[in-house]
Amino acid sequence: MSSPIRIAAIGLAHPHVFAMTQHLIDAGATLVAYEPESHVLGEAFGQVFDRAQARPERASILEDSSIDVVVGAGLPSERAALGVDVLRHGKDFVSDKPGFTDPESLADARRVSAETGRRFVVWFSERLDSRATVRADELTREGAIGRIVQTIGLGPHRLDAAQRPAWFFDRARAGGILTDLASHQMDQFLHFTGTVDADVRFARTANRGHPEHPELEDFGEAIVDGAGVSGYVRVDWFTPGGLGTWGDGRLLIIGTEGQIEVRKNVDLAGREGAEHLFLVDGTETRHVDCRSHRLPFAARLLADVAQRTETAITQEHCFRASELALRAQAAADALGPTPT
Amino acid sequence: MSSPIRIAAIGLAHPHVFAMTQHLIDAGATLVAYEPESHVLGEAFGQVFDRAQARPERASILEDSSIDVVVGAGLPSERAALGVDVLRHGKDFVSDKPGFTDPESLADARRVSAETGRRFVVWFSERLDSRATVRADELTREGAIGRIVQTIGLGPHRLDAAQRPAWFFDRARAGGILTDLASHQMDQFLHFTGTVDADVRFARTANRGHPEHPELEDFGEAIVDGAGVSGYVRVDWFTPGGLGTWGDGRLLIIGTEGQIEVRKNVDLAGREGAEHLFLVDGTETRHVDCRSHRLPFAARLLADVAQRTETAITQEHCFRASELALRAQAAADALGPTPT
Repeated sequence: MSSPIRIAAIGLAHPHVFAMTQHLIDAGATLVAYEPESHVLGEAFGQVFDRAQARPERASILEDSSIDVVVGAGLPSERAALGVDVLRHGKDFVSDKPGFTDPESLADARRVSAETGRRFVVWFSERLDSRATVRADELTREGAIGRIVQTIGLGPHRLDAAQRPAWFFDRARAGGILTDLASHQMDQFLHFTGTVDADVRFARTANRGHPEHPELEDFGEAIVDGAGVSGYVRVDWFTPGGLGTWGDGRLLIIGTEGQIEVRKNVDLAGREGAEHLFLVDGTETRHVDCRSHRLPFAARLLADVAQRTETAITQEHCFRASELALRAQAAADALGPTPT
Repeated sequence: MSSPIRIAAIGLAHPHVFAMTQHLIDAGATLVAYEPESHVLGEAFGQVFDRAQARPERASILEDSSIDVVVGAGLPSERAALGVDVLRHGKDFVSDKPGFTDPESLADARRVSAETGRRFVVWFSERLDSRATVRADELTREGAIGRIVQTIGLGPHRLDAAQRPAWFFDRARAGGILTDLASHQMDQFLHFTGTVDADVRFARTANRGHPEHPELEDFGEAIVDGAGVSGYVRVDWFTPGGLGTWGDGRLLIIGTEGQIEVRKNVDLAGREGAEHLFLVDGTETRHVDCRSHRLPFAARLLADVAQRTETAITQEHCFRASELALRAQAAADALGPTPT
């Protein structure tokens, strides 16, 4: 057996870094070090992962040739530059989404990845950490619903404004809602349609309910095309307090021979827990409980790091999904705010 | 008490005419006569409503001054001209949707309605005959979810191609999918947003799974705006055989303070029957069983006929909803077929 992949955590601003790190540890990685003074979560990170070494000097992590992978969830606007730095130090970078808030930094990362042969991976958790979505992917590939006609991806989120740091409401640092939340949706659309080529046909954003945060976009939508499939995407920050989770994320897929609905996080006033899949085909309608389904991403990613393969996610997919989100955001920005 | 409204049925091509007639009878109308040789359903209509008089000559119905209202569900392309004829004979016309398949006939009906003071009503059954949708309307008006931010209307339908008459696959006679199925959606959007002013921002159609019917559009979608609310609409002919009903129609409403999901016809692998409403607000998530909720439309319509009021639906709304569907269709036609 090969020696464990050694990882470190830099950029500890969003709690996603806890889940990403834990998934990689569960899949066999060794967490070596972290930045204890990074943003607001540095200290908490050290308490949760108390076997890792606190290294206040970022350079001591970047220059440690025993470390293979850096995981990061800093401010969205800072992720690309950090990732490029990590790649230049001969390591792979695993970023929280969004990996990029502007096309220029995406282009930089693309160039440096090509030059160094290192990977800038974006962890699109709404697909990769959703067991029911993984199952939907398998079912569609097995032909359970025929050829895909359309996907609808709904990505509602709870705002909890009082709990959010200042950067969250700063467009330049956080990115717009399509850049951020819809990057999950673009990842999902490209993955399910099996292509990296897609076009934005329409996109817009709005602030419909939060005038006290003028730079926040609380609503965004986009229509995309790719591989003969239509995709509609809606994201928002309107999850009400009475929902038992942060958001009722859905994926609806129409196929020529059937349809799938994934209720990722909750089945409203229905079955307990998360990870629900509903399949309707030519003969029946059934619920598939996916709570015990496998999540293969982290283990595949570690194998890819060791073997320089691309079984978990391809570099091109990470860049193209990010690019599609940025293009949707740009299209919405060009359209201007919608009338209220 | 006033004497019952007297109705007759002309144009018996689509089975919707059975439900429309029955609703009006249940609300107190007297069915006087029908056209026995009208399209394929004339004979069956006479068997179901066996107390009505068969009148092979359409003129004998139109010229019967004792008849107040004509109900019709002929070929979509013929409904407008029939309606205009009915209005010119001093009666109100209650049409199956779509009432119109082209802007010119809509303009004719608008002019003749203004001239005669008679009404051209379109029965948008996916709202008016859906108890859960009626309940959703009440709840939103009561402020249960705050101000509406967005609606998503999904109108999937089962094709059952072998059961469909030839005209169904003829674009000129049936209208496109946005003209037809999305007219329900436009009605619903305008009604829920409380406006008749709305714009089509994007629309497209496709034939993704039925090349043997080249004029059929089996997929359509549109984005509309009105009254500061965004609307997304998707309609299709892909309902699989394994679904226990003709289509899993949904209405999803995001509000600033809560959200509603209406599952009009079925709760996939969940609760029995139809008419499901799910409400999430600031404090809870709950299911509302709407199977016993009232359907006020038919009774209000009869009162409107007697009193010349507009409590059930306004003339302007019928025209504007139809117009919005036609504009979406025209926008999709102008865009051309989407790549497959």
